[in-house]
Amino acid sequence: MENDIYHLLTQVREKSPLVQNITNFVVMNNTANALLALGASPIMVHADEELEEVVSFCNALVINIGTLSKPWAENMILATKLANKLAKPWVLDPVGAGISTLRNETLKSLLELKPTVIRGNASEIIALQNFNNKSAKGVDSTQSSSSALDAGKLLQEETGSIVCISGATDYVISKDEITEIKNGTAVMTKVTGMGCTASAITAAFIGLAKDPYQEAVAGIAITSLAGELAAKISKGPGSLQLNFYDILYNLAKEQILGNLKLKKYANPS
Amino acid sequence: MENDIYHLLTQVREKSPLVQNITNFVVMNNTANALLALGASPIMVHADEELEEVVSFCNALVINIGTLSKPWAENMILATKLANKLAKPWVLDPVGAGISTLRNETLKSLLELKPTVIRGNASEIIALQNFNNKSAKGVDSTQSSSSALDAGKLLQEETGSIVCISGATDYVISKDEITEIKNGTAVMTKVTGMGCTASAITAAFIGLAKDPYQEAVAGIAITSLAGELAAKISKGPGSLQLNFYDILYNLAKEQILGNLKLKKYANPS
Amino acid sequence: MENDIYHLLTQVREKSPLVQNITNFVVMNNTANALLALGASPIMVHADEELEEVVSFCNALVINIGTLSKPWAENMILATKLANKLAKPWVLDPVGAGISTLRNETLKSLLELKPTVIRGNASEIIALQNFNNKSAKGVDSTQSSSSALDAGKLLQEETGSIVCISGATDYVISKDEITEIKNGTAVMTKVTGMGCTASAITAAFIGLAKDPYQEAVAGIAITSLAGELAAKISKGPGSLQLNFYDILYNLAKEQILGNLKLKKYANPS
Repeated sequence: MENDIYHLLTQVREKSPLVQNITNFVVMNNTANALLALGASPIMVHADEELEEVVSFCNALVINIGTLSKPWAENMILATKLANKLAKPWVLDPVGAGISTLRNETLKSLLELKPTVIRGNASEIIALQNFNNKSAKGVDSTQSSSSALDAGKLLQEETGSIVCISGATDYVISKDEITEIKNGTAVMTKVTGMGCTASAITAAFIGLAKDPYQEAVAGIAITSLAGELAAKISKGPGSLQLNFYDILYNLAKEQILGNLKLKKYANPS
Repeated sequence: MENDIYHLLTQVREKSPLVQNITNFVVMNNTANALLALGASPIMVHADEELEEVVSFCNALVINIGTLSKPWAENMILATKLANKLAKPWVLDPVGAGISTLRNETLKSLLELKPTVIRGNASEIIALQNFNNKSAKGVDSTQSSSSALDAGKLLQEETGSIVCISGATDYVISKDEITEIKNGTAVMTKVTGMGCTASAITAAFIGLAKDPYQEAVAGIAITSLAGELAAKISKGPGSLQLNFYDILYNLAKEQILGNLKLKKYANPS
Repeated sequence: MENDIYHLLTQVREKSPLVQNITNFVVMNNTANALLALGASPIMVHADEELEEVVSFCNALVINIGTLSKPWAENMILATKLANKLAKPWVLDPVGAGISTLRNETLKSLLELKPTVIRGNASEIIALQNFNNKSAKGVDSTQSSSSALDAGKLLQEETGSIVCISGATDYVISKDEITEIKNGTAVMTKVTGMGCTASAITAAFIGLAKDPYQEAVAGIAITSLAGELAAKISKGPGSLQLNFYDILYNLAKEQILGNLKLKKYANPS
């Protein structure tokens, strides 16, 4: 399994999938840098006039609702419809799910468009299951990822999407399988947009368009591993962010094989 | 006094106040990272449809007019009115005060809404006093903070707000007291958005909602101290920005007690 | 020639030209930090209501179409007309030229307004010559800079602008001269917005408003040199971005004289 992940990373580095992002203002820079460090190619277009052209030549799409507004929500839905029409895989990052009506309505529309992958933290995944979730607080996660596992499984069933839950343990859930990833580090939650970065990196992997589940596992695993290795040489969240890009850029086979902590099992649901 | 500041930092780390930011595109990433490194929780929502919900559950609000436009100005005013209605404390960062009519009119409306705290550099504080200030140049400060002290005192009187002036010496001015903070370093002015960061950190402190003056002093003092300590291990503005987050994240009691240079005296005005 | 560049850098540090940027969301933070580290003064205003005031007191203007939308395109054209009226020099950064109709139409309008300098990567410069360029992919360059030299010369002839092509070799092309700069490093392409940074730094230099060709050469040369020197002490794109600001901030005469690889010759066209 670790070998497959290394192989997929090699494919991303060779093919450099073009990832189109409609994402939030806070993380645009991080996202672009993470995609470049990974070996993928980022593009960030949000104007309705450009979406048809850009979606037509990209390999994958990220929809991240972080700093949402009505016109951006409309363009997200437009981009997603175009992606579906052209069979381009896409990742939904439901930042702040549950905190507002605008966000919840937008998410409902996006869920109906059947994301290839949904990636969020525990609070977001739980909120997607229950738009009245009162415990959602800001855009940080206030829930443990294991407590969101049931919500993630239900969400997977309802949507057919691959559901990824980021946390102390990451979960990647398909109809048939669940993969647990025990890499990463708590300091990653002190760097803004590490979750958004995980979504963008996952989009680069599913841009390979061979096996979306295995590719999503690779995206989540590589992100958490790079964060964990970066934390080992960092004094805090500032140096972690910087080292994350360096580690991701240089990530070698032996680092992947020697450090990944994966467990795959059947989804019993 | 230094012990109080350490105590307030501990409170922020424990309670993790949720700070809602309507801020500029240049610094959104820095602001979020600074709030996370401090131990607070950032959220950045600007759409009118979401403001009522978000202001209702946040602990403090930042209004920063850096990359202003008409629709954002309207949403800033809306958010501020909501904050006032719900008695949520808020910080006004008057970036580029004096450089345009749009900015000055927006600032007039915001001043009427009585910010809990106004934090700016010397040029901005002077311009707030005199919207025809011809010496304002760009968004950097071209005035020394001590030359802005009189303007700051007048502004305090007129608005009733706590007024913070950032500079070689920082001043935090209330009706009754003035605190001088002689921490910080000139290199901080070579990192974009350090002032905006001071405003956001101050918002996190006043989100504790016990003693806004003492909390504002703590916000300004902690920012300048973290910048000063970061500069000691930095080779320039690039490493300063990174080290700032690391230092802020790890800031210990003895660093605060051993390095803060505060002086408090009565406001004679 | 290297002495002239050092002299111009000294001028920028002394005069601190105010550079007004209408640029993309991805790089606003980088751009502001690069201008500050250089010794210039950044401002980022995009609202039509503010442009007349801000263009009137700035020294140079950057128009960067990275995250374009219709209203921003209109404001870019407005700002440019104001700059021309007031004889303020400006740099056009045609990010993603060729990828969409909106972008190409906007670029046509901007080219008619005669930029002082056009700076792009090879793909962008070629696309500007041929808006049907099918090989353009994303916003990264997929062409070598030398393959774009002919397109750059043609573009220079048609527009009268100074044309800068960033790449393994940078070219700065005027009617009479071509300067080749063999500094820089491939890792710079793995940091988002290094090209945008080159454009902003070039704007700071032409803000000196003495000799735009020599100033443009200095802007491109200083950017590539700082990137090259930063790469020598960096482990990857994360540390490169940070070290770039530190190096730029501290760049000394002997580093410039000892490391610049420039060649100037007549433009035979």
